[in-house]
Amino acid sequence: MGSTPFLRLDDAVLTRNIRAMADAAAALGVSLRPHAKTHKCPQVARLQVDAGAVGLTVATIGEAEVFAGAGFDDLFIAYPLWVDADAADRLRTLGDRGVRLAVGCDSAEAATNLAGLPVEVLVEVDSGHHRTGVAPASAGDLAVRIADLGLAVRGAFTFPGHSYAPDGRSPAATDEGTALATAGEAMAASGVPAQVLSGGSTPSAEFVEPGVLTELRPGVYALGDAQQVELGTIGFEGVALTVAATVVSHAGGRVVTDAGSKALGADRAPWASGYGRVLAVPDARIVALSEHHSTIEWPDALPGLGTQVLLVPNHVCNAVNLADTYHLADGGTWPIAARGRNC
Amino acid sequence: MGSTPFLRLDDAVLTRNIRAMADAAAALGVSLRPHAKTHKCPQVARLQVDAGAVGLTVATIGEAEVFAGAGFDDLFIAYPLWVDADAADRLRTLGDRGVRLAVGCDSAEAATNLAGLPVEVLVEVDSGHHRTGVAPASAGDLAVRIADLGLAVRGAFTFPGHSYAPDGRSPAATDEGTALATAGEAMAASGVPAQVLSGGSTPSAEFVEPGVLTELRPGVYALGDAQQVELGTIGFEGVALTVAATVVSHAGGRVVTDAGSKALGADRAPWASGYGRVLAVPDARIVALSEHHSTIEWPDALPGLGTQVLLVPNHVCNAVNLADTYHLADGGTWPIAARGRNC
Repeated sequence: MGSTPFLRLDDAVLTRNIRAMADAAAALGVSLRPHAKTHKCPQVARLQVDAGAVGLTVATIGEAEVFAGAGFDDLFIAYPLWVDADAADRLRTLGDRGVRLAVGCDSAEAATNLAGLPVEVLVEVDSGHHRTGVAPASAGDLAVRIADLGLAVRGAFTFPGHSYAPDGRSPAATDEGTALATAGEAMAASGVPAQVLSGGSTPSAEFVEPGVLTELRPGVYALGDAQQVELGTIGFEGVALTVAATVVSHAGGRVVTDAGSKALGADRAPWASGYGRVLAVPDARIVALSEHHSTIEWPDALPGLGTQVLLVPNHVCNAVNLADTYHLADGGTWPIAARGRNC
Repeated sequence: MGSTPFLRLDDAVLTRNIRAMADAAAALGVSLRPHAKTHKCPQVARLQVDAGAVGLTVATIGEAEVFAGAGFDDLFIAYPLWVDADAADRLRTLGDRGVRLAVGCDSAEAATNLAGLPVEVLVEVDSGHHRTGVAPASAGDLAVRIADLGLAVRGAFTFPGHSYAPDGRSPAATDEGTALATAGEAMAASGVPAQVLSGGSTPSAEFVEPGVLTELRPGVYALGDAQQVELGTIGFEGVALTVAATVVSHAGGRVVTDAGSKALGADRAPWASGYGRVLAVPDARIVALSEHHSTIEWPDALPGLGTQVLLVPNHVCNAVNLADTYHLADGGTWPIAARGRNC
């Protein structure tokens, strides 16, 4: 082990990824509000805003605090927050600092907690992922309940998470468009029209049709990961973030490295080929993972003990959240400032 | 969200768990060297040593540095380290501070890097988990290679990780005993006798037969987790560590909380019933997990929005590694001092 495992960030690939999504959003005529829970890093967020992003998406109040502290002043907490007294104080503090803040909501009960706070609200609708959100046709009713509390309703949002499946990308984009169109119509009919209809995941983004969405919130696209490679969203050349690992054993005729689930994360979708991939060795498969071991079936002659290899995590958001620092390919480090900010 | 998710540590259960394993090791006539990668916390380690542990097991040099800094002076890095120049410097520094240090080894090449360092060495043998380690009958040959480098060979160790399977606990303990007996015989025949034959995982510990092992290295037993519950190692009353979460949505007639894979970890063994369990609600099932959402099918009337519930992670080692602090059930906090110390 020694100096591995660590996160290696190829800033040339990162820059290219950020530019490509900014161009795609511009071509589509929608705003881009990248999800910063993926990278948790103000330096990456700055590149995104400099490329034209209108603001950032975050998942928690804690992430909002980190990015507000780094000077980002337009933040959407895309989560159906349950705001207790402590959370209300923290949202007020963010408002007092001049941050333009929006939050998600999928129930009248949760909306009640938001009354009087310096936040705009987006109604969350379920576009087929079946996690949180109201039925799109109910968005108007909830929007009225929120507006009646004196809150500004910015619009509606959804996360088409069912895009994370083989052959799921295009259908999820279609579902997303249909759901947001329905929500928009329901809100208009209720007299609380949506200014923003916000959607977007990295796998579905390329299949969004013009005309409904006004905002995209992809996150993973900046860094890339093995899930995106295996879903066909990107090739290996789109992977900016890898875990540098050292070969520590050849037990059983396989490669064992020192990057395990405490470095790569333990995510493994049912359709994944393994626990991650190996950059530049597409036929290698990570067949087992312990906390400090990854076991790799290698397609040809094994790399020698002590060799450094670059592993691609299945789900980059969770891998990044395990480390404190990015090591840039061209030298230097960036802090993962919002690591662990779960609340 | 607000103040959840956070790690809640029931110190009464923790103390009982630590006492029970200490008693079991004493009854078996073996030394106990608990694995500190589970809890990463000097306060927990102190309870273990006060209950009779001979020292600690750790996974990385970084963990060794944290526990040495907290005053623990007998540490075994149970890992086949590949020691580069930086790692060698760090091991020398630990030796200079008076730490009695041992490391694992499963190849002559890795042993070469250890020559001249202030470490004893344990040969790693594979007892059926098929991760790292040499075949038990080869332990004598490797021990001779290590001894020829001028290094002190303390003995042999194994991790019977195939105990993590339904009906795997007792057979893995048998395999472990057989492998360590074979390794001990091979080392004696080679003229490098083992002083220590070290094994033990939490699921297999109760099935260890007296007579072969001299040392046990379980880790999870101190905190407990859903995997141990589902393997039958413990009941829910043995779970000391939970993730406190808030119900944020009732979408789809299910409970959605704010503790996702960034709080619980994403571990899910093929035999697990879900992504964790709910303390005190044995019939609830966590059927989906996102980074900041757990979706729970609840057996009866749903707890109201805003209710705090206690979730049991599948794999406590990875859940602990996501947080910086334990919140004790009887008040106060303990730092997770070795969080993220992967190298």
